[in-house]
Amino acid sequence: MSSLTKDKKILIVGLGLIGGSYAEALTDKGYEVGAIARRQETIDFAVNKGIISHGETEVRCEYVSQFDIIVFALYPEVFKAWICENQKFIKNGAVLTDVTGVKRSVVYDVQNMLKDGIEFIGAHPMAGKEVYGVENSDKAIFKNANYIVTPTDKNTEDAIELCECLGRELGFRAVSRLSPEEHDEMIGFLSQLTHCIAVSLMCCKESERLVDYTGDSFRDLTRIAKINDAMWSELFMLNRDELLDQMELFIAKFNELKCCLENGDVDKMRALMRLSTERRKFFDK
Amino acid sequence: MSSLTKDKKILIVGLGLIGGSYAEALTDKGYEVGAIARRQETIDFAVNKGIISHGETEVRCEYVSQFDIIVFALYPEVFKAWICENQKFIKNGAVLTDVTGVKRSVVYDVQNMLKDGIEFIGAHPMAGKEVYGVENSDKAIFKNANYIVTPTDKNTEDAIELCECLGRELGFRAVSRLSPEEHDEMIGFLSQLTHCIAVSLMCCKESERLVDYTGDSFRDLTRIAKINDAMWSELFMLNRDELLDQMELFIAKFNELKCCLENGDVDKMRALMRLSTERRKFFDK
Repeated sequence: MSSLTKDKKILIVGLGLIGGSYAEALTDKGYEVGAIARRQETIDFAVNKGIISHGETEVRCEYVSQFDIIVFALYPEVFKAWICENQKFIKNGAVLTDVTGVKRSVVYDVQNMLKDGIEFIGAHPMAGKEVYGVENSDKAIFKNANYIVTPTDKNTEDAIELCECLGRELGFRAVSRLSPEEHDEMIGFLSQLTHCIAVSLMCCKESERLVDYTGDSFRDLTRIAKINDAMWSELFMLNRDELLDQMELFIAKFNELKCCLENGDVDKMRALMRLSTERRKFFDK
Repeated sequence: MSSLTKDKKILIVGLGLIGGSYAEALTDKGYEVGAIARRQETIDFAVNKGIISHGETEVRCEYVSQFDIIVFALYPEVFKAWICENQKFIKNGAVLTDVTGVKRSVVYDVQNMLKDGIEFIGAHPMAGKEVYGVENSDKAIFKNANYIVTPTDKNTEDAIELCECLGRELGFRAVSRLSPEEHDEMIGFLSQLTHCIAVSLMCCKESERLVDYTGDSFRDLTRIAKINDAMWSELFMLNRDELLDQMELFIAKFNELKCCLENGDVDKMRALMRLSTERRKFFDK
């Protein structure tokens, strides 16, 4: 059933920064994109900007049932509740995907509650900005970013490929496949741990007078300290065990460096610095 | 004696990235800039690029004695050794300054060993790149950066003002005055601690396969993990007590966030996130 052809109608549920950017990218590629958002102004803005063809604020059977692909760009718990209440409106054969930043705690629950004939395949677009809302939608955020698809035993190869194809249509630089568990470990380290570090660093001192003394390093390390506390605390709690493991790994490494300094072990300190320099080279764009 | 007029001849000792960028900025402003570097190719490159008027690889009295202002862009220990051996060549009334990233362990030592009639005033240009050498010189690195002057009781107001004026001529966005102690605390937190964090984070895991899953946050937090191990280990050791204090402060805050996660204290977690968000706003450019 499911190859990604231009006749597929795509519904975006939740029209914030990510949902809006999906809509923009897919409309530009020639798909018919609809949306469901809470506020009429959001829909009006998106229609006027030409990033969706149409949209609604209510969840109605006549509207939802016309779509072949549905992308959920909602907070994890809101997403699960939506599926529970409204999956009855989704048409047979539809493929569902999401943009949620944690997977174990979402993918299996959603797959287990789904009715027969529709398939959910998790995905995580590793893109964002420090601003929110459909007004800031920008498909360019996907350009140098990564897209991870997280299939389980319940997924068909057709749906997995459709979801990967969606990532490529959106313009991501790389599309990868990981299990929900691998994903959560990876994201616990690469994304959640880094946000914990940035928040902690920013909480250390009053910042107003620091600005005149700072170099770029502090600025870089705290960019993500401007954080949506509702969303990130939910994501942290949904990946708690994994994130705690990653935090402990980091503390162990940080203490290793601290011990070098305490003991005046310059050779080991330099070895750690050379290791970090070597490893960082893979990330040069 | 010491106001910064265009007839002042300026010597840069050490023509790496920072020394070269100073030379470029000051030559462009119309000063006569000379240099001492270890290798003839460095001098030739800088003369051909028009960023210095002339330069030498030996430290000769006839050359050194013509300069009114001398900027030392050397590693801390090399700088001290240079002063010890060669200050006899420096002319009466000259003002010396530096670019060293730590101050307590440098400024007092240098001031104590100086002969009468010359004055040293410490300064720290908070600018850099992840590349080295005169070939990468670029006065643009000063544009959005801060410049800190670190006077002591031994300094005259004239020399302090000359040094501040130099920072403005170089094009820094802000020129500030701190004691060497205040400077080292500030830099221990803003710069050295952030480098420790970046190095530790990069040392946590093999990085090759992380590249396809990473978002911008990990990239931002590890930019400075590409680090000159010789220079930074020396700077860390010269600011050891202060840096250890800052590392402990950070660990305490990081553990505070970790406890929230362990205890499921979402309210406190969100309060920390809101605090970090609020404080980070001062850093928006």
